[in-house]
Amino acid sequence: MSERPILTTRTGISTPTAVRVRGRDLINELIGHYSYTEMLYFLTCGVFPTQPQRIVLDACLVTLMEHGLTPSAVIARLMADSVPEEPQVAIASGLLAIGSVYAGTTESCAELLLAIAARIDAGEADVVRKVVEDYAARRKPVPGFGHGTHKPDDPRTPRLVRIAQDNGLHGRYMQLLAELAHAVDRAFGRHITVNATGAIGALFLEIGVPVAAMRAFSVVSRAGGLAGHLLEEQATHSGRSIWAAAKATVPYTEET
Amino acid sequence: MSERPILTTRTGISTPTAVRVRGRDLINELIGHYSYTEMLYFLTCGVFPTQPQRIVLDACLVTLMEHGLTPSAVIARLMADSVPEEPQVAIASGLLAIGSVYAGTTESCAELLLAIAARIDAGEADVVRKVVEDYAARRKPVPGFGHGTHKPDDPRTPRLVRIAQDNGLHGRYMQLLAELAHAVDRAFGRHITVNATGAIGALFLEIGVPVAAMRAFSVVSRAGGLAGHLLEEQATHSGRSIWAAAKATVPYTEET
Amino acid sequence: MSERPILTTRTGISTPTAVRVRGRDLINELIGHYSYTEMLYFLTCGVFPTQPQRIVLDACLVTLMEHGLTPSAVIARLMADSVPEEPQVAIASGLLAIGSVYAGTTESCAELLLAIAARIDAGEADVVRKVVEDYAARRKPVPGFGHGTHKPDDPRTPRLVRIAQDNGLHGRYMQLLAELAHAVDRAFGRHITVNATGAIGALFLEIGVPVAAMRAFSVVSRAGGLAGHLLEEQATHSGRSIWAAAKATVPYTEET
Amino acid sequence: MSERPILTTRTGISTPTAVRVRGRDLINELIGHYSYTEMLYFLTCGVFPTQPQRIVLDACLVTLMEHGLTPSAVIARLMADSVPEEPQVAIASGLLAIGSVYAGTTESCAELLLAIAARIDAGEADVVRKVVEDYAARRKPVPGFGHGTHKPDDPRTPRLVRIAQDNGLHGRYMQLLAELAHAVDRAFGRHITVNATGAIGALFLEIGVPVAAMRAFSVVSRAGGLAGHLLEEQATHSGRSIWAAAKATVPYTEET
Repeated sequence: MSERPILTTRTGISTPTAVRVRGRDLINELIGHYSYTEMLYFLTCGVFPTQPQRIVLDACLVTLMEHGLTPSAVIARLMADSVPEEPQVAIASGLLAIGSVYAGTTESCAELLLAIAARIDAGEADVVRKVVEDYAARRKPVPGFGHGTHKPDDPRTPRLVRIAQDNGLHGRYMQLLAELAHAVDRAFGRHITVNATGAIGALFLEIGVPVAAMRAFSVVSRAGGLAGHLLEEQATHSGRSIWAAAKATVPYTEET
Repeated sequence: MSERPILTTRTGISTPTAVRVRGRDLINELIGHYSYTEMLYFLTCGVFPTQPQRIVLDACLVTLMEHGLTPSAVIARLMADSVPEEPQVAIASGLLAIGSVYAGTTESCAELLLAIAARIDAGEADVVRKVVEDYAARRKPVPGFGHGTHKPDDPRTPRLVRIAQDNGLHGRYMQLLAELAHAVDRAFGRHITVNATGAIGALFLEIGVPVAAMRAFSVVSRAGGLAGHLLEEQATHSGRSIWAAAKATVPYTEET
Repeated sequence: MSERPILTTRTGISTPTAVRVRGRDLINELIGHYSYTEMLYFLTCGVFPTQPQRIVLDACLVTLMEHGLTPSAVIARLMADSVPEEPQVAIASGLLAIGSVYAGTTESCAELLLAIAARIDAGEADVVRKVVEDYAARRKPVPGFGHGTHKPDDPRTPRLVRIAQDNGLHGRYMQLLAELAHAVDRAFGRHITVNATGAIGALFLEIGVPVAAMRAFSVVSRAGGLAGHLLEEQATHSGRSIWAAAKATVPYTEET
Repeated sequence: MSERPILTTRTGISTPTAVRVRGRDLINELIGHYSYTEMLYFLTCGVFPTQPQRIVLDACLVTLMEHGLTPSAVIARLMADSVPEEPQVAIASGLLAIGSVYAGTTESCAELLLAIAARIDAGEADVVRKVVEDYAARRKPVPGFGHGTHKPDDPRTPRLVRIAQDNGLHGRYMQLLAELAHAVDRAFGRHITVNATGAIGALFLEIGVPVAAMRAFSVVSRAGGLAGHLLEEQATHSGRSIWAAAKATVPYTEET
């Protein structure tokens, strides 16, 4: 007779004299032996990254950390002025905004690449062209393509591609992304850039990051960027000026 | 006539063909050149860490990342089951709990060390002893001392001390912390361990991290740990069992 | 030549001597003249509710306020112990969990009823039966039907139906919901209860609440319930026991 | 031998055929019998309010609900555009900002009034004058006094005072607040208004609301106001314009 498996966690445990993390001794095996980035990979992938994987992951995390006054940063700044004694509230509030609109394309692009790869593996021909033409016919943006500010090309993408190549990690998914890019330009009749979040989706696949971890990696990256905003906010109190600007931008009316 | 300075940000900006971050070119100077940990230091301290500073910062971040089912992790797991489509909500919710109770001792210990150093610099004698005896007289715990689980000693502390020594960063604040530890045992009449958050407060001072950034660093560290919990939760749905356990632990009563 | 309309807000404004809220004088027209429930309706629907509408809205809000240790309440309790000085963090954290899983059926049920009504208005026959049989064929639950705890019937539903009838608000959508209920039992071959969130979705339509406001109304209702949990938590510190129960329920393992 | 009392909750429980809330039958005793405001009072105070208490509580809740584009509302609007599929995230984010800076004076003023009353009860003379002169000597604002926008007087305060008088609830704490107001003008040498949050702190004491529940009541009130902002935001997408205004207000600089 089969039994329901006992629910357990492999994440970690503290005992009086030790901390175990995923089967390792935190004190003697982890602290001082691995970087934060390597631990992040370990905690989500279950193994430590190779050196090339680590380099690519650091490049992706650094790419997403900081882009100035994003909505996430504006929220964190306003919150820092409202709840000054508990600064984690400002950072956590900013991270709540790392949602489907601003970060979701990373996993959407990765899922698209996985779906294309699966159809190719199943023997289907011409998959990339068919997928892109379907988006074009529905007038839907292809996940990972286009950018509001970076035109004609997102400058982060070729840099990430180059790092993948230099580290022997420009494999199947990066190749598929390049094929997608050609097909997109043809099907939409104009050049649409591969954006950084799309490139990162493909790179995460190359280094073995599960799709389920991708949003979390975006959040971790942005947490570091928001630390910088928090510090600047404590010095400048820009939140008060942003608030005044918001009120001036959206004036009150009684007209219907 | 002096003018009110114009409010500006140094954090970053995106233009069509570039991203500037704190005066650097993200594409050509940062991505691929620095690790996440180095960027975190740069975004909060304004300069890049030396190699020893980077090693110590990584050690501190790795120390705080993961300790199993903390309240923060339990909250993140319950939230992951309630808002599955937006996983940043689970991580951000867990980070809201990185507050005064669980993370505040890092900055409290750092502030205490800074205050002691300032009084010594002002020529006052016997400062450490007087400070500790004052806490003892008021029966208040000294920030950075004592631990609920790790007894008699927090095993993370000697490991962090050793890394500081090995990297030439066991300076004034680590020395003051060691003096505090001796005085605490004497004044309280029993051995009380320096805990990891206290040691990290001193280490952050050694590597030049401003007190205002310390909570943010704890949050960043824990964000990585919560990424691991999120992934495990998506596979195990422990949140449902935790919920049932909570209901069983706190039964309903109508007695007054 | 048409111009882009200037962006404005009708919500409210403070001036030195007055507060205007949606065209009304807060001091002389609103405070003391309307209840919280009436104001909630006014702020989202733009007009004040009739007395029957107010009674039904209060009934819906009271129905959702409090059900004991829901995940939302457990999260709020854990957070109250982690961030005791800023109690809004506990309540807001609990409210983050009022998401698609636990509250989304209210708007899903309302949207289903609107879609059915639109198809009937377009002259289509047998819409309710076809809709339900489609769900049954796909083995998908019909939004607003079924409940994990309340079996065979959610006791809140007949009470809400009765209040609608007593107040002359058992109109088209409540009638469609009753028809759905008959069709569900037939198509699924067993009795499945109309749950309270489904009934509330229909009732909100009856009283003119836009679908876009329904999640917000669930959140407002639960905010009141969490106020009660917060107070009890400050007295009992159940969060500590819940944390211990979570750790006991999900033990650490190193097995793979 | 005494035993540790078993931890229980009185908030509520769901069974297959009933919901019990604080010893009452939700279906037959609460839904349709009480308003949201009455339930809020019941869940935090343990008894139902008298009619005058209910009127005063509604007046306080209505006073705090909506004041236009507060930081809380700006945060909610930015979040609504970032996480559109889970609207509770926008409301909860806005509520996180109902913290010590913007809402804390309600409980601070209540605590001050309780402390004054206790000293008077202990036989001390001239307490109000001494308390205010102490604040004036330390150049600290008295909790509940002064307002950034409303000058010379917060127009909400006399309205709330009048409602208290009309309902026989202008008791000891409202009287003490009036005495404080006279002493403040004298000690600070100029007229400083009693603001609405201060008046509400006194009114909450008059109707028996515990200090521990006051922040929660502010949060509940504002949740209703944010529901209105959420709806307007879904129609206007002001978040995009507010974001642009924030970037224009805080331009990027590389100067040091």
